Amino acid sequence: MFMKKIAIAIHGGAGGDSAFIRDHLAEYEQGLKDAVESGYKVLESGGTAVEAVETAVRSLENNKYFNAGRGSALNAEGKVEMCTSIMEGNQMKAGAAALVRNVKNPISFAKNLMEGSEGMYVGGPVTLQMAKEMDLELEPNSYFVTEHQFDAFREEREKHPGKEKFALHMHGTVGAVAVDKKGNVAAGTSTGGTNFCLPGRIGDSSMIGVGSYADNRTAAISCTGDGEYLIREVMAGSISSTIEHTGCSTQEACNHVIHVKNENTEGDLGAIAVDTDGNIGIAFNSERMHRAWKTSEELEVKIYR
Amino acid sequence: MFMKKIAIAIHGGAGGDSAFIRDHLAEYEQGLKDAVESGYKVLESGGTAVEAVETAVRSLENNKYFNAGRGSALNAEGKVEMCTSIMEGNQMKAGAAALVRNVKNPISFAKNLMEGSEGMYVGGPVTLQMAKEMDLELEPNSYFVTEHQFDAFREEREKHPGKEKFALHMHGTVGAVAVDKKGNVAAGTSTGGTNFCLPGRIGDSSMIGVGSYADNRTAAISCTGDGEYLIREVMAGSISSTIEHTGCSTQEACNHVIHVKNENTEGDLGAIAVDTDGNIGIAFNSERMHRAWKTSEELEVKIYR
Repeated sequence: MFMKKIAIAIHGGAGGDSAFIRDHLAEYEQGLKDAVESGYKVLESGGTAVEAVETAVRSLENNKYFNAGRGSALNAEGKVEMCTSIMEGNQMKAGAAALVRNVKNPISFAKNLMEGSEGMYVGGPVTLQMAKEMDLELEPNSYFVTEHQFDAFREEREKHPGKEKFALHMHGTVGAVAVDKKGNVAAGTSTGGTNFCLPGRIGDSSMIGVGSYADNRTAAISCTGDGEYLIREVMAGSISSTIEHTGCSTQEACNHVIHVKNENTEGDLGAIAVDTDGNIGIAFNSERMHRAWKTSEELEVKIYR
Repeated sequence: MFMKKIAIAIHGGAGGDSAFIRDHLAEYEQGLKDAVESGYKVLESGGTAVEAVETAVRSLENNKYFNAGRGSALNAEGKVEMCTSIMEGNQMKAGAAALVRNVKNPISFAKNLMEGSEGMYVGGPVTLQMAKEMDLELEPNSYFVTEHQFDAFREEREKHPGKEKFALHMHGTVGAVAVDKKGNVAAGTSTGGTNFCLPGRIGDSSMIGVGSYADNRTAAISCTGDGEYLIREVMAGSISSTIEHTGCSTQEACNHVIHVKNENTEGDLGAIAVDTDGNIGIAFNSERMHRAWKTSEELEVKIYR
């Protein structure tokens, strides 16, 4: 069989700059590099795009500097509640979960869900019960809590005394897209949500068509930015539809949806994409998007524009 | 100001035929007629498309023959857990909720959420807490349970002893789309889920871009059918994108996505749509889709092809 060109791209969230980011540039760059390399290795050794996406996202979930898994934001109750989704572009199967607690790697939960027969999208306490049946690693809430996120939580709490935060500007996500040697694409996204947000808020990262989408006929896409803006634009699906209907390149589709269609948006929007030919597309309208990509020709790690 | 042509379309789910439906055709037809008339009246008296959609969906939620609100399916615990979403096409604001219990009219919860500043998409017990703050009508679980749905639940339980049902074929939804005198469109969807399904399953009807979507530049769309197939196709968003990129009519976009793009699907798919010029689009690939529509020129109520 003819081997296709493998490629992987990852992101660690799009948004504004911060002192914390500037103070930890080396850690962020190392984290992005480690994650993209770990996923690329899976592809190189013949693993599937789904496995590569899972591996890269797990690496970011396990890295305390990114808002997913360990290092997740704390909701208004001081608890970590996570969202995740994964999709593969061959059969277009998907798995997604919202309001996940105590699961060390939500992306693996989504992958198991996708590969099982237990439905496609679940949320709340049932996710913990199912994660136990899947033999996934569990952690107490304290595992997920970092001092940085606790400080951010406390700051928000002081700004909004007695009331949770419901603003539209909520972000902090990780994601990955990959194409494997068989030419199948996959996309995955995972998030810890927003500091001091309403417990029970379901994030865009758990939504197939918004956070993650994959279709071999178009591309695999993972989106990040202000969740509620991504939802109203059905961001990942919109990028896929742009390729479907116009035949444009993966990069052009990302540019079109983020810089043309949403030229006047107030939201931070970012997307990474890859198609079955190994072409990568990356676009964002914010000050920064933590990102990295690797192909047989290049390895790039970037944070700012 | 020039008044635009008003129009409303509703559905009460797409899927296979059943003895229960055949035995209650008169009740279904009356329920559809009452709902579409109630929404049309709102439009005639100058109400917004959002208000018309809410009114029509509430009518279906209150009608025990439809799987939404009273008459909802029972999950594996014998509880009613509902999903809903609403979106308006002018500012593209949206509200959506999953895993809603005890709220008499989930669509009104979604509308309040859309109009408030408390976020766009929430799920689980927080919905009850928020519904209380919204002063919405609440009902005990027993209000929602009909004998017909309990019999269906018991039948599924016998078929799947000791294990919840996780099949992809899960449906039973209501929805409405409308355009008002100002030429703004809106879409809303509500469902009681599937009998004996996993508690915690999040339904497509709660997903903006899948169950409901609205954009004045394209159309307002509400989808029904097998949830997991609707999710992987990002059904409502896909119909909107087809109009956006090809400039085809609302009816052609529904036909394209359901009969051409998904020609070989195994899933039951149905959609209703309306654009700012009052053009209605309706398509489904199943044996039946309960539906009705009303414009200044016609009133139609149909169940089979």
